[in-house]
Parts: sequence; structure tokens; C-alpha cells
Amino acid sequence: MITIPVDQLRELGVKLFTAQGTSVGRAEYLIDSLVEANLTGHDSHGAHYYFRYSDRIKNGHIDIKAVPEIVKETPGSALIDGKWTFGQITAKMAIELAVEKAKENMVAGVGAFNCNHIGRLGYYTEWAAKKGIITTMYVNVGHPSVSVHNGFGRTFGTNPYSASVPTSGDVPFLVDYATSVVAHGKVSVAKAAKRDIPVHWIKNKDGNETTDPNDMDDGGWLLPFAGYKGMGLQMVSELLGAVLTGSRVGPAPYTDPPSPNGVFIMAINPEGFIGLDTFKMDTDSLLKTVKACPQLGDEKVLVPGMPEEITKEKRLKEGIQLPEETWDAIVAVCKEYDVDLDAILK
Amino acid sequence: MITIPVDQLRELGVKLFTAQGTSVGRAEYLIDSLVEANLTGHDSHGAHYYFRYSDRIKNGHIDIKAVPEIVKETPGSALIDGKWTFGQITAKMAIELAVEKAKENMVAGVGAFNCNHIGRLGYYTEWAAKKGIITTMYVNVGHPSVSVHNGFGRTFGTNPYSASVPTSGDVPFLVDYATSVVAHGKVSVAKAAKRDIPVHWIKNKDGNETTDPNDMDDGGWLLPFAGYKGMGLQMVSELLGAVLTGSRVGPAPYTDPPSPNGVFIMAINPEGFIGLDTFKMDTDSLLKTVKACPQLGDEKVLVPGMPEEITKEKRLKEGIQLPEETWDAIVAVCKEYDVDLDAILK
Repeated sequence: MITIPVDQLRELGVKLFTAQGTSVGRAEYLIDSLVEANLTGHDSHGAHYYFRYSDRIKNGHIDIKAVPEIVKETPGSALIDGKWTFGQITAKMAIELAVEKAKENMVAGVGAFNCNHIGRLGYYTEWAAKKGIITTMYVNVGHPSVSVHNGFGRTFGTNPYSASVPTSGDVPFLVDYATSVVAHGKVSVAKAAKRDIPVHWIKNKDGNETTDPNDMDDGGWLLPFAGYKGMGLQMVSELLGAVLTGSRVGPAPYTDPPSPNGVFIMAINPEGFIGLDTFKMDTDSLLKTVKACPQLGDEKVLVPGMPEEITKEKRLKEGIQLPEETWDAIVAVCKEYDVDLDAILK
Repeated sequence: MITIPVDQLRELGVKLFTAQGTSVGRAEYLIDSLVEANLTGHDSHGAHYYFRYSDRIKNGHIDIKAVPEIVKETPGSALIDGKWTFGQITAKMAIELAVEKAKENMVAGVGAFNCNHIGRLGYYTEWAAKKGIITTMYVNVGHPSVSVHNGFGRTFGTNPYSASVPTSGDVPFLVDYATSVVAHGKVSVAKAAKRDIPVHWIKNKDGNETTDPNDMDDGGWLLPFAGYKGMGLQMVSELLGAVLTGSRVGPAPYTDPPSPNGVFIMAINPEGFIGLDTFKMDTDSLLKTVKACPQLGDEKVLVPGMPEEITKEKRLKEGIQLPEETWDAIVAVCKEYDVDLDAILK
């Protein structure tokens, strides 16, 4: 593993994408979202996208200058055509609109289609929470890798779900997970590390049990989490993220673009209900109660969002560790675009 | 088990509650919601509430004549004080308002507090779907019986989640489940049948593994489904259902009323996005694809909501089976209120 200080990883990312013609503002937002994924421990959504997105720009899948457009709008709702720019730029517009509309209208719904990979959902829902707005987010991943409960073969993407609510800050609340048992990236990490995986994560191409992570890319598939319960949420993400927004739906063959997302955000202003101040006060009290729960076994009770905060505190100090092959690929793409790495890494 | 034809179970229910002073309209709605739970296989939410609710009326926990009141309202939102009437009557007002507001405003959020037990969530979300509106519903159960992930002891209620979307009717889509591994009622069913339960359902009062359903009522607790993922949804139901609406929150001691609910509904009109006709067409197509998925093992692939439809078709023909002790308790309470059972059951 190579350890990179956070500021340097950020600076070289911004330089890499501006060198490809991305505006500074867009590059900074994009890189902040990716580095934040590494910081919070979600490496599968982090800096390895530096070279993946660079490839997608080169192949014409990401249009760095396209401007997402609202194609349908009411005071409480909006539907956005992402125009295949960076998914993060489309998601930024979606979450900002959702918050703005919820401030005025108390409740808002915003969807997006023609949207590239948006990265980690928690980046957006947590931002909204800091603005005093509750959000839930359902995202379709238009790249089938997960079966349905009792099903054979790949039907849906990892179709994540996220929710966050305003707090006064001591304890966060952030739910953000794939509706598969684990994210695809965790299988890839085990594969790179030549480690076995638990038997309940995937099936191999014949539908048999396996602990070999190589079976995933050899026609295997992830399972939905918790059987029919996870399948329910998996399908809500598909129906709201994809069907409702007009994004790519269901088990279509995996073609271009590599990883489209269909995005749906529901936003709620506590002022329409108990009021923001009371909501934050009562939420804080509840989260502290949960955090203080006596533990049953060896693991502490953590409020959803705490593991991310703990990891972030550590990595801000210690830097971000990247596998050598990830770092090598970042170095290679930086060289391709004449980014002066020595000046950044000195 | 005693088998009761559906119409008779319905008629005696309506007569039982009108005999206690409930209006015919309210009694019919209440009984329809309870009988529908039995019909769809969710017996834990069914006719055994005939005598439980009768007790709660007698004890002053259910005010049969109270009229729920909107205490805060905007075009897209409403907060309802349920005034401790039947939870079903409060939930009826909430779902009707949510649908009406989503029709006008494209998106709506409706919450309710001072709300008694509302029964099966799918009754409301499925009704909205038939009106062309997508809903998600988060409900707090203010009666702690479930631990948090890694936690010792009872912290939250079974805090269910439901979602339903409009379809053209061939295949339904309804997600409706407790955020515990199983509903409390399933443990009670095993206890009544003197059957062991799977080891992953509950812990006993000392936090040890157990297969004895009696351990639940002896200080044991249910586990959240799927560890930290289920805990995430469990807490979203608490934060939206209880904190946002001002209902009873968290691990407070179990006192009066016996089973309060905090209710939050988000409603979405597809017309604000892809449009209702296209939404239904694409949803139908997706659901048929899922239904036709090749199966991996012995179990068929079922779209969420199909198990309920299959059970309903069967029970409409064959009648509803009730445990003898449930039937005896219903007979006893009918006698108490001079309901002429012989006239109904002939």
C-alpha cells in the first residue's frame, strides 16, 4: 500500500481533471466527493475513479462540459436530464434543488436520468442534513451484478439506499449502503488481496456456493442483502431511481455507458412537522441513547454514520492508503496529461 | 384451528365495534384493514385485534369518537394529531391527504402523532398505489422489543417500512416488513404452537442464543434484520415516524397506551417525473421480468407483494383460520357486547 496525504491526493486530482479540460469548480467538487469516500472508509468509491473517469472521458462516456438541464419542474419536484456529464455534477444539482425546494415547499422530490456514476450517496444526503433538510435517496445502478432473492443470475445493480437527518453535530446519522450483501468493490478488494470471501456474499456462474472472489468476474453474482427484505429495497431503488426517472432499467445487457445511475431524492423540511430545532434536539438525544447502549458482544454499538466519522478522523491525520496498482494507474494517467506529480508530492 | 368464512369474520367485527359505539363507517374501515391482514397472510395484524382493541377501548386507550385534526399544513405537507382514536382512522386520513396532496403538488409528506396501532402498513400504501401514487411509509412502534445491532436489550419497536407503486394490475409491487428479523407476532405464533424458533430471531434476557420462543416474553428481545443494514432502516423509521412527528421516541419504558405508532408517509405523483402511463407500463414490464427470473433453488422468484396476493386468493375461497384461543377470545368479547353470533355464523 502507498500512503498519500489527503491534500496531495486532492490537489493532483483537481490538476488531473482540469488538465483534461474540466473547469476548476467542477473538478474541485468531483475530487472532494471522491476523496471524501476514501476518507470515510468507502475506498470502493474513491480515488481509483481518477483513472476510471479519465478513461470514460476519453471514450466519450463522460461529457465534461455538458450542463444538466431541468426538463420538468413544479414547486415541489424536478426531473433533471444529466446530459451525461460527471454524475457528481448532476447529483450536485439534484441535491441542491431538493434542499432549495424543501425549504420553500416543506417536501420535495428530485429525479435525474442520463446520469453517469455519482459515487457515494452519503456525500449528498449528509450535505442536505447539514442544511437542515432530511433526505432519502434511492439510486439505480444500471449495470447488473446482483440477483434477486431466489433468482439465478444477475438482475439488478447494487442499487444503493441512503438517508440522513439534521443533528446538532455531536453524533451524525447517515445510512448509506448497497442493497447487495456487500458492495461489488469489497469483492474486488478481496480479489486483489488474494483473500477468500464469506460464503454468503456471492454465487458462482453455476449458482453454487463459493469463497473465491475470482468467481464474481467469471459470471458470478452478488446476493441481495437479507433475502426478500433486501430484495424489497433493491427493487424500490430500481423503481424510483430508474423507472420513475426514465433511466436504464433492469437486467439489460451491460453495454455503454459503463455505469449509469438513475437518481431519486426525497427531501423533507422538519419545519413542516415538529420544527427543525426540536427535531435536532430530540434526534441528538436519541442518537446519544443509542450510542450509549450496552454492547452484547465484542463490538461497540455504533450509530449509522459513526464508522465513517471515526475513519475520517484517522485518515485526515494519517493520509489515505491506496493499493500499489491503484497508485500506479493514477501516476500513469497523470503523466498522460502532463500533471507535474513531483511538484505536488514534494 | 377454527376456519371462519371471510364475510362472517367481517360482519361480526363490524357488529362488535358498532355495539361499542363506533360508527358504521369507521367500523367497516377498521374491520376491512384487519381482515385484509388475515387474507394476505399477516395474521399477526389480523382479527385477534378484535378483542385487543375492545380492551383498549374499555381501558380508555382508544377514543372511538375522537376526530383526528390537522395541526400544521402546507400544499405539500400535513401533520395530524390522531387524538388517540383508532390508529386506522388516523392512518386513513394520513394516506388520503398524502394522495390528495401528491395529486396537486407532485410530492407530499404527511405525519401523524397521538396515534394508536394502525395495523398493517401495506393496507395504506397499496391503496395509494391504486390511486396512481407512489408511497413510502416509515412507522415507529412505541413499544420497545428490538435491540440495535450489537446492542444488549430492547431499544426500538419493530419499526416497519413499506413501499408500493402503481402497476397495471397483473403483478403487484408491495414492500411491507418489520425492521426486526421477524415480526413479534411470529414468535408468539411459535410459542402458541410450542415450536422452536430459529436461533437468529431473538436473544434471551441474558443476551444468549435461544430457540425457545418463551424467552421473548421473559425479558428477551428481537434482533434487527441484517445487522447494521437493518438497524439503519430501523432508525430511519424511528426518526421519521417518531421524532419528526413528535410521537413517542426510543427506549422509554412500556407504559400506556399499549402500542402507539408514529407515522410518516412520503407520496410521489409519477406525473411529476416520467408520467403515470409510462411509469405503469415500464413497471409492469420490470415486474414481469423479475417474476420470470430462473430460480436458483427450490423456491420460486416472487415479486414483493406476490406472496400476499397468492395467500389472499386462497383464503378468500377457503376462509380464514384462527387459533382456538383467538376464536374463544373473540366469542367472549362478542358475548360481552351482546353481538348475536348465532345469527352471523349460521
